[in-house]
Amino acid sequence: MDSIKVFAPGTVANVACGFDVVGLAMDAPGDEMIIRRSEQPGVQIKAVHGARLSTDAAQNVAGVALQALLQKYDNPDVGFEVEIFKNIQPGSGIGSSAASSAGAVVGANHLLGQPFTPKQLVRFAMEGERLASGAAHADNVAPAIMGGFTLVRSYKPLDITSLHTPADLWVTVIHPQIEVKTSDAREILKQKVLMTDAIRQWGNVGALVAGLYQENYGLISRSLEDVIVEPVRAILIPAFYELKLKCKETGALGGGISGSGPSVFMLSKGETIARQVAATMDSVYAPLGVDYKVHVSPINKEGVKVIS
Amino acid sequence: MDSIKVFAPGTVANVACGFDVVGLAMDAPGDEMIIRRSEQPGVQIKAVHGARLSTDAAQNVAGVALQALLQKYDNPDVGFEVEIFKNIQPGSGIGSSAASSAGAVVGANHLLGQPFTPKQLVRFAMEGERLASGAAHADNVAPAIMGGFTLVRSYKPLDITSLHTPADLWVTVIHPQIEVKTSDAREILKQKVLMTDAIRQWGNVGALVAGLYQENYGLISRSLEDVIVEPVRAILIPAFYELKLKCKETGALGGGISGSGPSVFMLSKGETIARQVAATMDSVYAPLGVDYKVHVSPINKEGVKVIS
Repeated sequence: MDSIKVFAPGTVANVACGFDVVGLAMDAPGDEMIIRRSEQPGVQIKAVHGARLSTDAAQNVAGVALQALLQKYDNPDVGFEVEIFKNIQPGSGIGSSAASSAGAVVGANHLLGQPFTPKQLVRFAMEGERLASGAAHADNVAPAIMGGFTLVRSYKPLDITSLHTPADLWVTVIHPQIEVKTSDAREILKQKVLMTDAIRQWGNVGALVAGLYQENYGLISRSLEDVIVEPVRAILIPAFYELKLKCKETGALGGGISGSGPSVFMLSKGETIARQVAATMDSVYAPLGVDYKVHVSPINKEGVKVIS
Repeated sequence: MDSIKVFAPGTVANVACGFDVVGLAMDAPGDEMIIRRSEQPGVQIKAVHGARLSTDAAQNVAGVALQALLQKYDNPDVGFEVEIFKNIQPGSGIGSSAASSAGAVVGANHLLGQPFTPKQLVRFAMEGERLASGAAHADNVAPAIMGGFTLVRSYKPLDITSLHTPADLWVTVIHPQIEVKTSDAREILKQKVLMTDAIRQWGNVGALVAGLYQENYGLISRSLEDVIVEPVRAILIPAFYELKLKCKETGALGGGISGSGPSVFMLSKGETIARQVAATMDSVYAPLGVDYKVHVSPINKEGVKVIS
């Protein structure tokens, strides 16, 4: 096999109470990527369709992730060409850079006969994240590669686990077309938090994980609460609290800011409610005069998929 | 049925990272209690064997818990007599008051034909905890009543869930015979914590819950870390760090301070290691000149049990 086409899913990081630790993958939107073995060693980004991103491999997250993989593969003759079809808008807060990094390393791993474990692939893809945001975080690339819900327990050492994903869980995401810089979103966070808030947050994280394993949608709903980060970052998102309130009134289990924004995600039980939640998002955003896109998707359980 | 005898288990609250939210029940030590229907309305504590505790029902946690139950039962003619055989030493940090409260209300509920749900029984038993420590906390009474591992997500409203308990998980507890007042242990805690520590803690809580559901002992072990409370409270326990280190070298998965101390608990996979951990605890404490007791037990999966 000299060429492979993969689907690389969008992802939601910072799932409510699970700030910095819990992420999930979606079936849509997602990028498509073609990765080809090349006579020429190293990595070449042949083209990026659908977004203005660098085709210099050292300045492209897919290129950087693949270079990390090749460094570990340790065969100086191996080379890849990459063509990227972006559907996930850069800066949307639903893991655009993670999808490119994840798709590239999973595709290349297939072409090489799967020498690397998912955890190793996460490490390579994290190097793409380092280029994109200055921090080699795993909370988007882990769900993009492993699928479903993932939990990053620790970075030193890297410790990631897949969580159970209830069968009927859907995501609705609204992406307001405004810019929120990850670095700005990070800077407004407080360095210290109240012990009482921290305890409430870890009670919610434990209950969210339990709710996922129990497929207990009520418990998931009650646990989707972020008393620490959301109150600080909500000001970055137009009409955030109105949006959240009306989505929950429509039947959404709960949600919050996706990644560091500007996208907002809502989880629902079943496609019907997820689509009603999308309509509610429309009704809140249409009068605002802010351009936006809405996506509705089941949880993606497999991560990056081989298309052909 | 006019009389019932129950076993009320000891419990570990504040399970490492799960400070204030995760608790577990043990098969030993535990109290035995006889609860009898009485002609006389209200609650009478007939005797307490094995510990010096008040037999004034208003000053005894079992009495207070039963009064809370009777208030809800709303039949002024109903009365109970209680006889308590304490095996769990008051002040040990392994849920002595919770066992008395839990045993009393579960026993009475059986005598009345089980009109109350476990969650209601937890509420009644929490009134006993209010008498014992000034705060109606649930992190001991929940596992005492429901068995296994429990998680208290929130108090307002009360939201408690049972977690999956891996089959082969054992507890070893050492109880140094020193006094640590819960109020003192509470006072030395900081009111604010670093965001980075809080994130690490909720990553650990999520991973601990996932580890329990996955029966993944490695993940449980790595998650049994408390970066917030243990560093402050460890000074209350003689030789705490040496004890913990040597227990882990012996094969314990991990552990920490039980409740607010002075007991220290360690979880292990299987009875053999749990007993080796007990021997290690002996070897650390024997030279210290501090009296102590060591208990080895599987996780109790049923909570309060009817003996006869």
